[in-house]
Amino acid sequence: MIYPEDAEFEMRVGAFRSRMECDIAVISHSRDIYYFAGTIQPSILLIPKDGEPVMFFRMNMDKGKDETWIGDCRKGGIKEVCEIVRNYSVIGLEKDVIPLSIYESIHKRAGRDIETTDITPAILLTRMIKSRYEIKMMEEAAKISNAGHERLREALHEGISEIELAAEVEYAMRRAGHEGLLHIRRWDGFLHYGMIASGENLYIPSGYPGATITGVGMSRAASYGASSRRIRKGDLVMADIGGSYAGYHSDEARMYVVGSADELQLERYEILLEIQERVIPVMRPGNRVSDVYEAAFKVIQEHGCEEWFMGFWHYGARYLGHGIGIEIDELPLVAPGVDIPLQEGMTLALEPKLIVPGWSGVDLEDTFLITESGAKPLTFSRRDLVEV
Amino acid sequence: MIYPEDAEFEMRVGAFRSRMECDIAVISHSRDIYYFAGTIQPSILLIPKDGEPVMFFRMNMDKGKDETWIGDCRKGGIKEVCEIVRNYSVIGLEKDVIPLSIYESIHKRAGRDIETTDITPAILLTRMIKSRYEIKMMEEAAKISNAGHERLREALHEGISEIELAAEVEYAMRRAGHEGLLHIRRWDGFLHYGMIASGENLYIPSGYPGATITGVGMSRAASYGASSRRIRKGDLVMADIGGSYAGYHSDEARMYVVGSADELQLERYEILLEIQERVIPVMRPGNRVSDVYEAAFKVIQEHGCEEWFMGFWHYGARYLGHGIGIEIDELPLVAPGVDIPLQEGMTLALEPKLIVPGWSGVDLEDTFLITESGAKPLTFSRRDLVEV
Repeated sequence: MIYPEDAEFEMRVGAFRSRMECDIAVISHSRDIYYFAGTIQPSILLIPKDGEPVMFFRMNMDKGKDETWIGDCRKGGIKEVCEIVRNYSVIGLEKDVIPLSIYESIHKRAGRDIETTDITPAILLTRMIKSRYEIKMMEEAAKISNAGHERLREALHEGISEIELAAEVEYAMRRAGHEGLLHIRRWDGFLHYGMIASGENLYIPSGYPGATITGVGMSRAASYGASSRRIRKGDLVMADIGGSYAGYHSDEARMYVVGSADELQLERYEILLEIQERVIPVMRPGNRVSDVYEAAFKVIQEHGCEEWFMGFWHYGARYLGHGIGIEIDELPLVAPGVDIPLQEGMTLALEPKLIVPGWSGVDLEDTFLITESGAKPLTFSRRDLVEV
Repeated sequence: MIYPEDAEFEMRVGAFRSRMECDIAVISHSRDIYYFAGTIQPSILLIPKDGEPVMFFRMNMDKGKDETWIGDCRKGGIKEVCEIVRNYSVIGLEKDVIPLSIYESIHKRAGRDIETTDITPAILLTRMIKSRYEIKMMEEAAKISNAGHERLREALHEGISEIELAAEVEYAMRRAGHEGLLHIRRWDGFLHYGMIASGENLYIPSGYPGATITGVGMSRAASYGASSRRIRKGDLVMADIGGSYAGYHSDEARMYVVGSADELQLERYEILLEIQERVIPVMRPGNRVSDVYEAAFKVIQEHGCEEWFMGFWHYGARYLGHGIGIEIDELPLVAPGVDIPLQEGMTLALEPKLIVPGWSGVDLEDTFLITESGAKPLTFSRRDLVEV
């Protein structure tokens, strides 16, 4: 396994600092610590606006020191962190993920009212642009999601259940080196390898927060992903799966049909292929993120299928995709009104979907890299509606 | 899939209310909502000290209403919740898990300083005692972890890598109906099916917060669980895996050796079997949780191996196990000084371990139910040091 050079970590910290709107950043979330320090050993990373970063390790400092480039490593937790933090006036926290109890503990130990700001936007904007190293890791992740799709083509047959099919796909991805989980920033969010769904499960809204086409799962406790439904001849089957490698992800959805696809299935899937073809030339530096959404939505309007686009009846979502990296859901959200310029090094997972109540659904997702000369797909499984 | 009767949910809410130290509880964590309301559709559950519970659904209220027993279901999010909550003086929140941003949003919308208390202890104390329904679900989960251990015995051979072995075990558990993830309450905590480790990876401290013997993983981004290490003849192999069924878990660790076990391997593993034999009679109503730890520690002292018990050198932990249910890590922690009486319906995962730097490690874990007449194991894979 290869890790970034110290110089790359220093650049990441520098890019974050230029966006910091606090005097000291208290970074506690494992994914953010991994990005800036290169380890997930239980620790808290302090980045002052001026001065050197400091890391406090709760437990295994030896391993942490071995893994991180940061020179100032100390043993300690919230107590030791607060002894430093109390000397600063504005304290930056990852407010979208850290639990209230951590904030209360800092507040109490500071012995005074503290002023805090949310550093998550600055962290996510920094992480939005990927380095050559990061792109390489995402290419490795794409090989792993491809291994899943290859296995699915072999394993899918009439009568197999969604969960049996998921077992095959996950087995292939794990053997290809998958780290076992997809990381999602959303608190209380969880996903293992992705979602497999078929037939009517492609239009039944599931329990996965904020997502479209996720399957119905095995029980009300996990009402998303593969279920025990047996796949029938003529069914559409969707696999929306992610690879993981050295903490980096790929996100890749493909459609399958058992037997021959009928005209309606082909016609609706063709709309997604057309969207992909039409948005690729738009994804280049100079355009804005919202232009990508608009280009896709134009195709949808031409086909008059607005009501099915990204939506379950009235639960429709207005987006086309999302950034991706060490978390599955990064900046930017590809959605109307997102006035961020497309930049070299952005990685976008675009996932146009049509969800047709009473019929089924279709989905096509690829992870793209924005380069100087345009969009390059990192995921590479075959993109036709696969008949097995 | 069977779900609890309405009367059981009402009892759960009643038991929680008797412990409430606030005027209204705002429950946002999916596992807690599942426990009290029977759904994980994105929602917030309000339980006032007096009066009927109310649920607000952010998205799919139809499915939520279909799944929950709660009569008063409304469409809405934080805004609508705050309109109710502002009328109460002390507001209960799950402070160990909800992000700071939710608190700030409630605080801002309340338009005044709000007084809050942490409801997590009351929730976890309520969840500590399992119903007959819950025990049945955990018995189903135990069948799934057993399927993993059965597959491991078939698949383990000299030269297989830890991750290849994990792929086999996870495949078998998934086919047996595993929901794909183990739920951990710790914020930023994550686990998929458990951990497989071998040889020296049994004593190398890993990146998993607070745990002992977790393996070293595939990269620094996920430094726990199976690695690419190839298993050699004579190696000890540990599989600490969990089943999941209808949201409930089992936790079960077994040891394997490739070829014939040597005397030292047998001798050290025997200590764990002796611990299990000696603590089982202690696990009955009337004794305290700490008595279970003390009984185990007495065995350790008799064998003079205190320095290896539950520890990596100076990173040793002082515990023997934990409660288990809809999260892997529930109350009570089985540790010295835990002065909680053992009660019928408690479920405890006990996991004595010896970690010997420079040698290897041994682990044995079973999930037990406390009954009127004593402890009954719910997990049932064969408990000897399996030679393959």
